[in-house]
Amino acid sequence: MRPFLVAIVFSIALPSFAQQPVLNLMPIPTSVQPGTGWMIIDSSFSVGINGYSDSRLERSVDLFLSNLRRQTGMPAQLMRLSEAAQARLVIQASRANQAVQELGEDESYRLEITTGSAKLSAPTGLGVMRGFQTFLELVETTPQGFAVPALTIVDRPRFPWRGLMIDVGRHFMPLDVLKRNLDGMAAVKLNVLHWHLSENQGFRVESKKFPRLAAMGSDGLYYAQDQVRELIAYAAERGIRVVPEFDMPGHSTAWFVGYPELASAPGPYQIERKWGIFDPAMDPTEEQTYRFLDKFIGEMAELFPDRYFHIGGDEVNGKQWDANPKIQAFMRTHGLKSNQDLQAYFNQRVEKIVSKHGKIMVGWDEILRPDLPKNIVVQSWRGQESLAQAAKQGFRGLLSYGYYLDLMWPAARHYAVDPMGDGAANLSPEEAARILGGEACMWSEYVSPENVDSRIWPRMAAVAERLWSASSVVDIDSMYRRMEVTSRWLDWLGLTHNASYAPMLRRIAGSDQISSLKSLADVVEPVKDYTREETAPVEPTSLTPLNRLIDAARPESATGRQFGRMVDVLLTGHASDLTRQEIRGMLTAWRDNQSSLQPLESQSFLLEEVVPASENLTRVATAGLEALDYMDRGARPEEAWKSKTLTLLADAGKPQAQLLLVIVPSIQKLVQAAAGGSAAGY
Amino acid sequence: MRPFLVAIVFSIALPSFAQQPVLNLMPIPTSVQPGTGWMIIDSSFSVGINGYSDSRLERSVDLFLSNLRRQTGMPAQLMRLSEAAQARLVIQASRANQAVQELGEDESYRLEITTGSAKLSAPTGLGVMRGFQTFLELVETTPQGFAVPALTIVDRPRFPWRGLMIDVGRHFMPLDVLKRNLDGMAAVKLNVLHWHLSENQGFRVESKKFPRLAAMGSDGLYYAQDQVRELIAYAAERGIRVVPEFDMPGHSTAWFVGYPELASAPGPYQIERKWGIFDPAMDPTEEQTYRFLDKFIGEMAELFPDRYFHIGGDEVNGKQWDANPKIQAFMRTHGLKSNQDLQAYFNQRVEKIVSKHGKIMVGWDEILRPDLPKNIVVQSWRGQESLAQAAKQGFRGLLSYGYYLDLMWPAARHYAVDPMGDGAANLSPEEAARILGGEACMWSEYVSPENVDSRIWPRMAAVAERLWSASSVVDIDSMYRRMEVTSRWLDWLGLTHNASYAPMLRRIAGSDQISSLKSLADVVEPVKDYTREETAPVEPTSLTPLNRLIDAARPESATGRQFGRMVDVLLTGHASDLTRQEIRGMLTAWRDNQSSLQPLESQSFLLEEVVPASENLTRVATAGLEALDYMDRGARPEEAWKSKTLTLLADAGKPQAQLLLVIVPSIQKLVQAAAGGSAAGY
Repeated sequence: MRPFLVAIVFSIALPSFAQQPVLNLMPIPTSVQPGTGWMIIDSSFSVGINGYSDSRLERSVDLFLSNLRRQTGMPAQLMRLSEAAQARLVIQASRANQAVQELGEDESYRLEITTGSAKLSAPTGLGVMRGFQTFLELVETTPQGFAVPALTIVDRPRFPWRGLMIDVGRHFMPLDVLKRNLDGMAAVKLNVLHWHLSENQGFRVESKKFPRLAAMGSDGLYYAQDQVRELIAYAAERGIRVVPEFDMPGHSTAWFVGYPELASAPGPYQIERKWGIFDPAMDPTEEQTYRFLDKFIGEMAELFPDRYFHIGGDEVNGKQWDANPKIQAFMRTHGLKSNQDLQAYFNQRVEKIVSKHGKIMVGWDEILRPDLPKNIVVQSWRGQESLAQAAKQGFRGLLSYGYYLDLMWPAARHYAVDPMGDGAANLSPEEAARILGGEACMWSEYVSPENVDSRIWPRMAAVAERLWSASSVVDIDSMYRRMEVTSRWLDWLGLTHNASYAPMLRRIAGSDQISSLKSLADVVEPVKDYTREETAPVEPTSLTPLNRLIDAARPESATGRQFGRMVDVLLTGHASDLTRQEIRGMLTAWRDNQSSLQPLESQSFLLEEVVPASENLTRVATAGLEALDYMDRGARPEEAWKSKTLTLLADAGKPQAQLLLVIVPSIQKLVQAAAGGSAAGY
Repeated sequence: MRPFLVAIVFSIALPSFAQQPVLNLMPIPTSVQPGTGWMIIDSSFSVGINGYSDSRLERSVDLFLSNLRRQTGMPAQLMRLSEAAQARLVIQASRANQAVQELGEDESYRLEITTGSAKLSAPTGLGVMRGFQTFLELVETTPQGFAVPALTIVDRPRFPWRGLMIDVGRHFMPLDVLKRNLDGMAAVKLNVLHWHLSENQGFRVESKKFPRLAAMGSDGLYYAQDQVRELIAYAAERGIRVVPEFDMPGHSTAWFVGYPELASAPGPYQIERKWGIFDPAMDPTEEQTYRFLDKFIGEMAELFPDRYFHIGGDEVNGKQWDANPKIQAFMRTHGLKSNQDLQAYFNQRVEKIVSKHGKIMVGWDEILRPDLPKNIVVQSWRGQESLAQAAKQGFRGLLSYGYYLDLMWPAARHYAVDPMGDGAANLSPEEAARILGGEACMWSEYVSPENVDSRIWPRMAAVAERLWSASSVVDIDSMYRRMEVTSRWLDWLGLTHNASYAPMLRRIAGSDQISSLKSLADVVEPVKDYTREETAPVEPTSLTPLNRLIDAARPESATGRQFGRMVDVLLTGHASDLTRQEIRGMLTAWRDNQSSLQPLESQSFLLEEVVPASENLTRVATAGLEALDYMDRGARPEEAWKSKTLTLLADAGKPQAQLLLVIVPSIQKLVQAAAGGSAAGY
């Protein structure tokens, strides 16, 4: 499970082109050994398979070549599978990967590139897929043509379970959205799509045995079984397992619209439109509940080939149970002292059903009870301590705490969370091996098919690196640099995290003239954690349009980050003239931005709430310029200026339109520095 | 066929919002009658069907609503089909359109919008589809919300055949490329996709009767029959007919790879890689040719439901016929005096086969011979005169002359070509009625799936308007303004004409830092007409990568056009200070652009050829600035400056890297004006 060799080499001397390329690999491989020179990739490039081959391996080659052709702009007739003897890149796999991909299958590979040829060898087809992604990341435009640097990479993942959970219950995501995200996942070597398929707000899969689940519980927004099979096949071709989640006994209102008899209180039920934790829960005391689940899970166990089956199990508030005398009587009869005990009873029953249908149960933290079989997997939203507890009891676990993409954290904050960190740091090797990896979670209260990519990407790549690369890979600057390159590569793959930005801004502006709105949007971020819900002017529901600036703004502002870095350099006193000019230029543009935005404001209802944020940008930038002026003059400002300005900045630091103006902390630093008289020689 | 009312109203007073919105409809409707106020489109918006309904009409509503939701950012649960009594937009169709869409079906509609509700009525479901597109174009972001202006539009097409031909023979286009282009076609009310399916370079459809056609003639790049059906269904849902073309007897090398016995000279044959007109042609003297075509056309006639069937018939050079004694003998025996006669004989035989299978034959100019039945349709690449000749002989015709998108003409030039103009201007009403419309042609020597959208769009919209709107609609400025808006709307629909630009430039630059390359790319255009082929440094083939700057550059530079307009205003002597500053600003940026581009040039082989073009930009912009300086000073330059500068500009006007620097003519005007001493008060 641990890398046998950690030798990250970024600067490789390549005398033949007299330049030092910087590798843009993400995740960083276990080991990179630089070679000399480049292998040119021209239209004669082809791939051959040496030794073991099957149709799936050939399909992997096809996918790889189609990406390579896209990257280089080659016609579809070129760059094909050929005889190994003629091929520039030879693939050598020792054996097939499993027909249904399994947890822990070998994903390692070795990629050797010389100036004349390249060889990608791996124990299984999965390793070949991972190696192909690395190869694609190595392709560069050089003076001699497209090329990959000569080198040897030996690589294997740190954790065997590297996932992304997408919640299609709260907001339905059409198949093409999921497919492009699978392409993105493959690019960063993730291997599990955790498909959160049922929620209070929607039940998203066709069941032939219980057709009212989707017919009445989905607003018509669900996946037909053929579509499910299509997606699973699409994922399998990319080395990605698909683990379905059907959340029970809570988070299940949508089930009850068609089947109210499952619930712990009489119906009728409606699809829930609000967000939160709700009362409806399955009745764990009725045998018909288990008969239903037996049939249903049996059907789904056939539809979803993966060995793992997620039953949710989170956030049951117990109110329906408390209020139901029959359930209370059942609890007394069976010696169940609390709702937790009742849920544990339910989980035990469900685990038997899941197991009977050949699957291994996965559930959120709450399912963890010593009386469940040790082969279940616990997914922790609570943290490494909780994972460690499970591991000590013999349970395997996944970390999702720290990887909630909906909280709008910066990538660096996710990146710093290690499944083996904190509470899990001191496990025995045996216990540690039970920590399988982690999953980033894209809960979808505030994401639509239009902006979901921008919530997942590119930050997902940072989590993917945490789960693949060595724990010692922690350089934030390197991560951000490579994340930006990865983000561009994801553009090629059809991800819309960048492409949807301008159209969304145009809609908000009601105009094609969006440069001033974009300047503002580039330096704001949505409020963090659960603040959006807590501070919403009107209670948001699943029917609320997601077309505000908060929905277009990126979770993490690259401009804000870059500006922050420049200010930090400035305050070291070692900034170049160019940096100083750039800072001043940015501040000036921000100061003047409102005057360009203003004419638009009266034209669009979606801009109304943005005005105060825009005005703040002017105020904050003005303060920054004043601070610079003081520093340039070497003059210490009056205390009154400092206190007035810091008050202004504190105000401007508060959310406007549920957006944070991300340059405020840097301007505060500038003001402090100017007022502290530390200006000399800055 | 002629509009009954031409009353284009662009500025509609809308007192309630105290602004005068400019309608962005393209094509311009037959009549627009402004109303007062706006109808708000919020999440309660729904569509109802009054009277006649069927599943296809409901599907049209679904497609419309899905576009409307995308445009406004509404969740998928909202904006649904509802009871007519509750609906804000009520649809009233008198009857179904034909199960298989027919030429000349009524596409008219009437759209009435008041502040409270809207009604879209049409004789058929086709008219409803067209009206939906108009409605979508009317949606704006306003201070009160999304809204459409109150108005009444009565609209019908001028011509019943408004098409786009896509050549998938020379470069194969995957299904998703065609689908997104069908979305674009529907947006501008086109109604025919002419699918050019076979060429010397590829045979692109699976034939079950003759499997070697695709298996050996396509490099594996062809459409399975299920895919063909899928595309036809997709088109039908958008009110678009699909007319297949199988080019014969020439342009048919790819057929002969698998079936050399069809050819007029012995094989074996290879898929052609070069461009041009080649010798191989079917043998019109062998009965086995007709037996083959009978079976083949029979199979295709079933696969493609449209009544019209295109047999190509263009550009047979006759060399194989001349060289084959058996064919020469046949010609003598049958009194066929020329290869044209032989081809006419072939066409007559093929027409009988086409007709036997229930289809009406379409062919290019060359097929026109009086002895063919009068129901065939001639597609003219030669011009209106040729069309008029056909019409006088009783044949129906389509214009494609003037609409060849591969020639890289500006939209205005296509826009100026009228099917009823020039040689067709003086036809009798009966003859004129035989001119069915036209088709833009996307020949694909130099287009790939990556850049084909940018070759078709947005210029296609100008041709679409020519074919739909009244002949009196000729305002170029209005056309360009609306074309740009349409271009943005096409972005929403998933067309990649804008989205692919930056990625292609990044590939050329080998870097994400493309601002200087983009500045250059924004003011160059590919060489026009057939110059690209004629001046190619290396003979281009179907295997040549299309990844050069010429492949990324837009056929028509919007920046160049805007700059040209500003210079023209400047030279009237009535330019504002802002315009003068803008011109100077643009010239200064261009002058300095090369210094930012230079560092990249040594990094990428794709930039090598670009260097001279970039240097020219610096020279030309410098000349422009010098001219401005003279004019500003009111000083007349020396003759030597003028002649040196004009020589420089003439040089810079020549293609570099097969690209034209489009600002050269405007700079020439500036230099002439400066030298002419007309500077005073400019």
